[in-house]
Amino acid sequence: MAGGARAIDLNADVGESFGAYRIGEDEALIPLVTSVNVACGFHAGDPLVIERTIRRAVEAGAAVGAHPGYPDLAGFGRRALSMKPDELESAVLYQIAAVAGIARAVGTELRHVKAHGALYNRAARDPGVARPIARAVRRFSGELVFVGLAGSVMNEVARDEGLTVAEEAFADRGYRSDGTLVSRDEPGAILPGPAETAEQAVAIALDRRVRTVDGRWLELPADTLCLHGDSPRAADRASAVRAALAAAGVDVRAR
Amino acid sequence: MAGGARAIDLNADVGESFGAYRIGEDEALIPLVTSVNVACGFHAGDPLVIERTIRRAVEAGAAVGAHPGYPDLAGFGRRALSMKPDELESAVLYQIAAVAGIARAVGTELRHVKAHGALYNRAARDPGVARPIARAVRRFSGELVFVGLAGSVMNEVARDEGLTVAEEAFADRGYRSDGTLVSRDEPGAILPGPAETAEQAVAIALDRRVRTVDGRWLELPADTLCLHGDSPRAADRASAVRAALAAAGVDVRAR
Amino acid sequence: MAGGARAIDLNADVGESFGAYRIGEDEALIPLVTSVNVACGFHAGDPLVIERTIRRAVEAGAAVGAHPGYPDLAGFGRRALSMKPDELESAVLYQIAAVAGIARAVGTELRHVKAHGALYNRAARDPGVARPIARAVRRFSGELVFVGLAGSVMNEVARDEGLTVAEEAFADRGYRSDGTLVSRDEPGAILPGPAETAEQAVAIALDRRVRTVDGRWLELPADTLCLHGDSPRAADRASAVRAALAAAGVDVRAR
Amino acid sequence: MAGGARAIDLNADVGESFGAYRIGEDEALIPLVTSVNVACGFHAGDPLVIERTIRRAVEAGAAVGAHPGYPDLAGFGRRALSMKPDELESAVLYQIAAVAGIARAVGTELRHVKAHGALYNRAARDPGVARPIARAVRRFSGELVFVGLAGSVMNEVARDEGLTVAEEAFADRGYRSDGTLVSRDEPGAILPGPAETAEQAVAIALDRRVRTVDGRWLELPADTLCLHGDSPRAADRASAVRAALAAAGVDVRAR
Repeated sequence: MAGGARAIDLNADVGESFGAYRIGEDEALIPLVTSVNVACGFHAGDPLVIERTIRRAVEAGAAVGAHPGYPDLAGFGRRALSMKPDELESAVLYQIAAVAGIARAVGTELRHVKAHGALYNRAARDPGVARPIARAVRRFSGELVFVGLAGSVMNEVARDEGLTVAEEAFADRGYRSDGTLVSRDEPGAILPGPAETAEQAVAIALDRRVRTVDGRWLELPADTLCLHGDSPRAADRASAVRAALAAAGVDVRAR
Repeated sequence: MAGGARAIDLNADVGESFGAYRIGEDEALIPLVTSVNVACGFHAGDPLVIERTIRRAVEAGAAVGAHPGYPDLAGFGRRALSMKPDELESAVLYQIAAVAGIARAVGTELRHVKAHGALYNRAARDPGVARPIARAVRRFSGELVFVGLAGSVMNEVARDEGLTVAEEAFADRGYRSDGTLVSRDEPGAILPGPAETAEQAVAIALDRRVRTVDGRWLELPADTLCLHGDSPRAADRASAVRAALAAAGVDVRAR
Repeated sequence: MAGGARAIDLNADVGESFGAYRIGEDEALIPLVTSVNVACGFHAGDPLVIERTIRRAVEAGAAVGAHPGYPDLAGFGRRALSMKPDELESAVLYQIAAVAGIARAVGTELRHVKAHGALYNRAARDPGVARPIARAVRRFSGELVFVGLAGSVMNEVARDEGLTVAEEAFADRGYRSDGTLVSRDEPGAILPGPAETAEQAVAIALDRRVRTVDGRWLELPADTLCLHGDSPRAADRASAVRAALAAAGVDVRAR
Repeated sequence: MAGGARAIDLNADVGESFGAYRIGEDEALIPLVTSVNVACGFHAGDPLVIERTIRRAVEAGAAVGAHPGYPDLAGFGRRALSMKPDELESAVLYQIAAVAGIARAVGTELRHVKAHGALYNRAARDPGVARPIARAVRRFSGELVFVGLAGSVMNEVARDEGLTVAEEAFADRGYRSDGTLVSRDEPGAILPGPAETAEQAVAIALDRRVRTVDGRWLELPADTLCLHGDSPRAADRASAVRAALAAAGVDVRAR
């Protein structure tokens, strides 16, 4: 993909509440994006949260995707776990199937899959991790769009498996010059606020580039922009992004 | 159902291993039954076990079903958990969807759903528990067969939801005169061995009745007979049942 | 206990955050109470949260207790689970031991144990549930104070096990005329706000009685008053309670 | 340590069953060793299994230790998990405390701590992983013996924390020339049977060396020999080791 100048998808990770625990600003955020990635119960989410989140996405007209992660609720899927390829493939397939089945029962069809957290980060660098994810997606349905880090090896692997890929960039995260994200442990990982997030969104959507933390410009062709639901002022950022993209004449829509 | 004289389905709960933990005799048991109920990862099983178990069932020609339970690995789904109807319905829907999606990726279609352990036992007595299960099954697919305790309220509820029901009896469990099973904590819960199990299977399949622990005869029209994979000498029991049913002229086949 | 007129302990359930999930207002609440009940990782909490929570309690001078619950993170320990007495006793012992060991490593000693949620509610009515809890407490240390619902059978059982008991009342929960709490599913379960909570606290501490939801007065001798950290405006309630108790001349201190 | 010629401790990882899942041959193995490492419920084991296992060890006269692992039941603690130092330290402290508290309730005192699986393997190579483990041990009690891979950096770190260290060698595992163990995924990871295991045990205990998989002799001063409960014929191996050590005049005893 990465075609269609002046059009972009806005996606958000949602459905990350769990039992009595609430996280994110789904109610405010979902109406502002065009695609949502629903946590599948392994790193976050639970069956009832999944169902309610998909209902909310359907009402808002957002495309529904699965957001599989490592089986690690205590770590919110942000800790790398050395799973073997076959167990990882089955674990991703299981998560996709669970969310897809609930989506269908709610009255919609799963449209895409995007790995979460440490699983996403490892797959972006390591084809041995990307391959089982891409295989699980393809085995579930070749119609599903594979969402991966723009320009990374995970997207190459997914294309090699015959999948349609959406190149993803991040509106609210700092970039390094090598195209990787600034780690969440380091300063500059999350842009300060709505204004900076909106500015970066427009740079990516309109100019296909991003300003890195060390001040350079990085080419960054992207099909979809991620807005994190757990960033400070997540909904404010999303509103600012939508307004800025509209002002810049960028069409915001799901792929 | 409960029609078709001299024909019966044999089912077994399978796929209950978890990570490094092995339980049951799936390899020996699956070729001896006509339907399998695959644990869904909540009370037993994991994604890789589910996938391998379904492959084995497909190779053996057994019909594949989902076997949802309470989310309680430590209790193997045998401890009642007071879930609310909406969270139970979503939890069952999630489990069905996960197993159905893996089944489809493996090349088969889910055929039935049977609740596990404490969930099954409570649903057999309490329509407030049976209803969310039946609703989850129906919402996933009206084509799925609902397997429930023969003559119990759970089957009434399932029919009321418009589902096809398979009345289930147990070849290896002791019955009380009121049609309930002897609790696993009590003597007589599990029949002594293959001979007694085979004898009970023939009584049910041919004569539609069972001898209770207090020596009476209980009418018991059934469509499917359960053979527990974790009973002592499970595979020997299954072999004995098949041989006895063949000798009695009963046709063994999935519905 | 239940002696010492015009003196009362204020306790709060704390340390219920889990991984990335934050719940409660521990920072604000802990300095306002004299005893804290630390979730043990089974229904809420995790090892790092436990350690940080105990540090905070030590800094604030609050007495540290363990708050064991059912092993059910997804249900926050609010769903009854039919555990057998021996597994329940071991599970409570495990939780007490884990929190007590961390407390000692942090430089304090465990002072009391209070069961959580559905475990507390069942033990308040069912001696078969109260007994394993009381046994676990006694086996860990006969010096620990057992905190239980004022006037309930769980306190009788604990005394029968030789334990010192603190009779607990709830400043922020509605009471029925039979001394039980209004269920969280029903209206009146949580008092509207700080004013009502403070008023009820004074009634209990000073007059040893409480106004029930149907308008009667219920005798309620109590040693400790619970303030829930997850109630709306929890810290405001606690401040109001402290101010009201001070104005009424009640001495607030740990037992 | 590593002194005391012709005397050695035999240890085994035990208590790895979980709920309905049985693993290992604890009943046969515990009477044959002098120290046991009890799984703490994070990678294996549960509270009731812990309590029963410690009772069995006390009856057999074996020294009781804690065997903390990564929080990963599905992976049996054999998958590396990228925990941060502070969360790892708290997690190990929690596990030690839980087992130590149950041990005391049963009537014995915890004597040692040995990390499990991937946690052990990473700590043996990475001081950043070894440090939080050693700190947790020291913070719980400076009297506890730290059991670590003979000659590895984890033991250096533990000594630096002021702990007494037991250098551990493996009777039933293949060694590489660099002193590391052959990975469980590779041939030669587990010695073929009791005879080879006994031979290696004597070589280590008597001659302080081991024959590596490529046929060389490796110096290996050790205080304790591990016998894995989940190796094929685990109890037979242990019997053969004890007989061979007795025949060689080696004194088998806990440190």
